[in-house]
Amino acid sequence: MSSTPDLSTHPLTQAQHRIHQDLLTALDAFAIPEPLKSAVHHAVMLGGKRVRPALCYATAALKPNQNTAAVRRAAVAIEFIHCYSLVHDDLPCMDNDLLRRGQPTCHVAFGEDTALLAGDILQSMAFEILGSRLFDQTYAVEASIVLKQMQILATASSKMVNGQVMDLQAEGQHIDQAALEKIHRNKTGALITAAVMMAAVTIFEGTDIAIPKLREFSQAIGLAFQVQDDILDIISETEVLGKTAGKDEQVDKSTYPALMGLEAAQQYAQALHTQAIAALTHLDAHADELLQITQFLLHRKS
Amino acid sequence: MSSTPDLSTHPLTQAQHRIHQDLLTALDAFAIPEPLKSAVHHAVMLGGKRVRPALCYATAALKPNQNTAAVRRAAVAIEFIHCYSLVHDDLPCMDNDLLRRGQPTCHVAFGEDTALLAGDILQSMAFEILGSRLFDQTYAVEASIVLKQMQILATASSKMVNGQVMDLQAEGQHIDQAALEKIHRNKTGALITAAVMMAAVTIFEGTDIAIPKLREFSQAIGLAFQVQDDILDIISETEVLGKTAGKDEQVDKSTYPALMGLEAAQQYAQALHTQAIAALTHLDAHADELLQITQFLLHRKS
Repeated sequence: MSSTPDLSTHPLTQAQHRIHQDLLTALDAFAIPEPLKSAVHHAVMLGGKRVRPALCYATAALKPNQNTAAVRRAAVAIEFIHCYSLVHDDLPCMDNDLLRRGQPTCHVAFGEDTALLAGDILQSMAFEILGSRLFDQTYAVEASIVLKQMQILATASSKMVNGQVMDLQAEGQHIDQAALEKIHRNKTGALITAAVMMAAVTIFEGTDIAIPKLREFSQAIGLAFQVQDDILDIISETEVLGKTAGKDEQVDKSTYPALMGLEAAQQYAQALHTQAIAALTHLDAHADELLQITQFLLHRKS
Repeated sequence: MSSTPDLSTHPLTQAQHRIHQDLLTALDAFAIPEPLKSAVHHAVMLGGKRVRPALCYATAALKPNQNTAAVRRAAVAIEFIHCYSLVHDDLPCMDNDLLRRGQPTCHVAFGEDTALLAGDILQSMAFEILGSRLFDQTYAVEASIVLKQMQILATASSKMVNGQVMDLQAEGQHIDQAALEKIHRNKTGALITAAVMMAAVTIFEGTDIAIPKLREFSQAIGLAFQVQDDILDIISETEVLGKTAGKDEQVDKSTYPALMGLEAAQQYAQALHTQAIAALTHLDAHADELLQITQFLLHRKS
């Protein structure tokens, strides 16, 4: 459990290769004028762990070869939403960050106006992708599935923004664990849950027992992801993290380590992972990828 | 043709009442934390002509009592997108406007961070509304219709942002009429076209002749709307317009009056209206509302 997984054959590494290619293909499908085109490309292709697409693919692996193009579109759409949120988060009126993954943030590279618009268009592009026939021109997925994908993505995107606001409001305040969890279930958890659920509704019928189990899994993993982020913000160096470490303390943000102590926070992250994995045991097979990604998330260093 | 229409019984006035109520109902359906909730409310309920919802309703009037809840959702969704674009346009890094409809702009009233997030969430709320059962809990519209609405709205939203960028790039440049039209077909035309087409796909089958005719109508009216805007920017007083008049000249923007002279621009607006109305003559009946709104748009003073 405690050893770092071999990443060369890890499903996360494979997901990173897949999504890299699909994001490029998706971006190519849009006619965007300069300098917006370069700004959008910068925002999307800067890299990152690609956790959300990886969860999307790994969930789809539960039922191989089922609506694969629609799963790929969901993965691209959710990464577009994630990238838009990072671009807007980094703006001067928000976190005013100059570095993201060791590179200049979008507004530093392209100016605030273009960065604002890059975030804006990435959001609508996400919904365009869902409704497109990208990755399979000959096959139209059922409209009812696309509708479910849209509902999940739109709701999660709104929750993400609500979580941002709750987070801003909580700065400098002393909040309890319930309040902190509410923030994170919205701010980061909603989109991680959406990554799993968008794939789930694409491969399973609405009545399948897998759907509630995967919701349980994704909610636990979504919260664990944030607890781990808070822990990493304290124990990591700026160099490894690729963004300014210790930033949470500087702005007096409530975090799990601040609330419960570092060790208890680590135990809580572990407990959430155990809970996530328990939800998966009820699924028949093909859950290896989801398990491996869950393990990675617990042991990640950045 | 030249007299100002009686507005008390005008379909635009009726549309304004309808959309006002539906926007309030829609906003009530969302749980949004403060101060975002107030900022979103401010952005949406500030008023305005509500041209896009009016076009949506008037198009739906071509076939009365057809999927009315889905038409109402489309009207709310498109107004949410329009309102988000205004909030982001007014930000300091964009137009840096302090007044909108005679009131403080969103960032002046709530701060830049909250205004940014208000625009962001209004975009995702638009897609949430489309996929919801708002206005008719008991009846689910066909998924294929919602999918078409989503495709139209997402594509128009992306085009709107592209148009913004083209517009920013053209500032201080001498561009020709073709380039100016390309900007406006994206920046303002796309969303006006979408207002008509979202209603069209909701009430007509995909093969109906009305669909291409309404597209023709909406594209002409969309461009005419912008030509008229440029004209009004020159001939109106700040007081009537509710925003800073003459702003286009200040920032050396290309406009139709600047390109072709005021009189020729007025003739061009008239010609586009004639073209729009011609497209409607091929439709059977119930086009009165669309005709009246078209007349209003040509004769408006703000």
